[in-house]
Amino acid sequence: MKNPIIYDETKKFVAKGYGASGNLIGGKTLHPVEVERFQPKADEVLIEIMYCGVCHSDLHQVNNDWKNTIYSCVPGHEIIGKVIEIGMEVSAFYLDDIVGVGCMVDSCQNCRSCMNGEEQYCLGPVAQTMTYNGYFKPDGSNYNTFGGFSTHIVVKDSFVLRIPKTLKYSNAAPILCAGVTTYSPLKHWGIKEGDSVGIIGIGGLGHMSVMIAKAMGAKVTAITTKEEKRQAAHELGADFILISEDEEAMKASETTFDFLLCTIPYSFDIAPYVDLLAPRGRTIVTVGLLGPYKSATNNMEVAKYGRSIAGSIIGGIAETQEVLDFCAEHNILPHVEIIDIKDINRAFEKLKDEEVRFRYVVDMNSLK
Amino acid sequence: MKNPIIYDETKKFVAKGYGASGNLIGGKTLHPVEVERFQPKADEVLIEIMYCGVCHSDLHQVNNDWKNTIYSCVPGHEIIGKVIEIGMEVSAFYLDDIVGVGCMVDSCQNCRSCMNGEEQYCLGPVAQTMTYNGYFKPDGSNYNTFGGFSTHIVVKDSFVLRIPKTLKYSNAAPILCAGVTTYSPLKHWGIKEGDSVGIIGIGGLGHMSVMIAKAMGAKVTAITTKEEKRQAAHELGADFILISEDEEAMKASETTFDFLLCTIPYSFDIAPYVDLLAPRGRTIVTVGLLGPYKSATNNMEVAKYGRSIAGSIIGGIAETQEVLDFCAEHNILPHVEIIDIKDINRAFEKLKDEEVRFRYVVDMNSLK
Repeated sequence: MKNPIIYDETKKFVAKGYGASGNLIGGKTLHPVEVERFQPKADEVLIEIMYCGVCHSDLHQVNNDWKNTIYSCVPGHEIIGKVIEIGMEVSAFYLDDIVGVGCMVDSCQNCRSCMNGEEQYCLGPVAQTMTYNGYFKPDGSNYNTFGGFSTHIVVKDSFVLRIPKTLKYSNAAPILCAGVTTYSPLKHWGIKEGDSVGIIGIGGLGHMSVMIAKAMGAKVTAITTKEEKRQAAHELGADFILISEDEEAMKASETTFDFLLCTIPYSFDIAPYVDLLAPRGRTIVTVGLLGPYKSATNNMEVAKYGRSIAGSIIGGIAETQEVLDFCAEHNILPHVEIIDIKDINRAFEKLKDEEVRFRYVVDMNSLK
Repeated sequence: MKNPIIYDETKKFVAKGYGASGNLIGGKTLHPVEVERFQPKADEVLIEIMYCGVCHSDLHQVNNDWKNTIYSCVPGHEIIGKVIEIGMEVSAFYLDDIVGVGCMVDSCQNCRSCMNGEEQYCLGPVAQTMTYNGYFKPDGSNYNTFGGFSTHIVVKDSFVLRIPKTLKYSNAAPILCAGVTTYSPLKHWGIKEGDSVGIIGIGGLGHMSVMIAKAMGAKVTAITTKEEKRQAAHELGADFILISEDEEAMKASETTFDFLLCTIPYSFDIAPYVDLLAPRGRTIVTVGLLGPYKSATNNMEVAKYGRSIAGSIIGGIAETQEVLDFCAEHNILPHVEIIDIKDINRAFEKLKDEEVRFRYVVDMNSLK
């Protein structure tokens, strides 16, 4: 057990972190910050963070794209770390266990969604507690949580995941967000052997979707604007590649997909992708965009084949454990580029330009 | 058998009709027209039309709102009539049978949709043949079908419905479009005892939805902008009324519905209704609008509770028979106002102003 922090049960402690401050307007960049953490309570564990993935949501949150950012903002919700302290009542984890924390660290545990194991749709008074930026719906109490770009984090045991030993720890982090975000809708809409599945956008989320849908037995088409992703998509296991700017190929693919998963993380026009869905196709679900589409949907295009357009965010805690185990079982490992924390701002730039293949993961040892 | 038309097997004949001509630009009105019909082929029946319902689609088509109207346009696709001639191979119908014709008169019978009994989503080369205005996707052959505002129609036997004897014929017509359009999604999304169902828009489609969803055992909320529809909605069997302009009531109803069926027939903003859907609620399905919504959907509002927005049109032929039988079994009868054909233009005006309670039906005897 390695624990560089001196604390007692009644006190807070300060961890190192990387965050954006409120006073940096426009082109916000991350810089070293001090992160106040609380002692682990009886049902909590203290985790020394080893790796943390870099998600598009980190960028959105830092830039206040959702108009709900509380500064200082310390992002990071694909956390792999080691348990270095456990509360009195924790029985599921031991010291030195390698564990994960995803996008949520708490929820009401009492509503219809939580009872169904879908804490991500919590109906409690302040909804689920996100790993960073406090409550998704701030309740005015100025509560703010701090994410994984930090040396340590303290999390309730029921929101801590077990990382299977056969997963390479440095690569496993993205499963905690990108993995479950794509696994959850693939599972919810019952993807199975032989289904024709289209994955739109081949980035951090998309590359996980291709591998997971293939492992579920689907015939997978990677749909991308970028011709240069063709080879990479094949290597991920995609059966077919569809270049969305090729109008003829798009036309020929209309009404052929049983299910489409859309991972594009910025505002876009969904209409050309809706046309790809077969009559009574299960759905086209958007998991990347958390804002308005570029244009109003024409219900004629939806209704004329009994289609639907869905949205989905992450997945429940049990489901997050499920996708970790699923990836271990099927030898699915995110493709990552390991970076130091000092390179995080450059990584955000490259993320915007879609240059990463396919996910940055910060080696948090670089913060010490 | 009453057959006022002299014809032989090789000839066309002329029926009386009411239609819009191509040369009436702006504020198109219906007027008497001659309708060329073909002799019934071996698998067809000749029907003398008794009643025909007036649907919003008739108005849209006459006004070329969908940019695909071929003039002359003779609308009407809620047809009740009597069989007065049958082709050599027709065995399902007899002379004097009271039958119905809905929105379709043919389809490819060969595609995935048709094989599934969902002819309304036909993938054949020219899709399903609509009862009027020829092919939904004109193939350039200038083919044009003429609907039920006519004394007679000739239809392939497999697209002819049996009208249960216990249904009052004058009132049954709207089941053929308004009925099946709302029954199909209620059935597809598995509405059952105890489900919380919201019906948005209490007009021709909405009033059928309330009665059908109630008969399926749902707790039904009628959602309308109009306070003056409160009493009528209760009389239709609605358990609750929600006035959509009452912001407080709308707020209190957020995330409470298992399913929402939206019958608003013009462009509108769906966002306030999406908010009513429970986490993982089955869907909100739009059946009234066949055009663009008023504004772009914010996927944040859809994704944050795992929701979806669907579209649906009419239903298959077997399903149309099913809803006719369902209505007979559950004593569901559309509320109609019977009019003469000469009053059709005034009826269109009132339809626009939402003044009808709840469907006009033309007594086609008035055309003779």
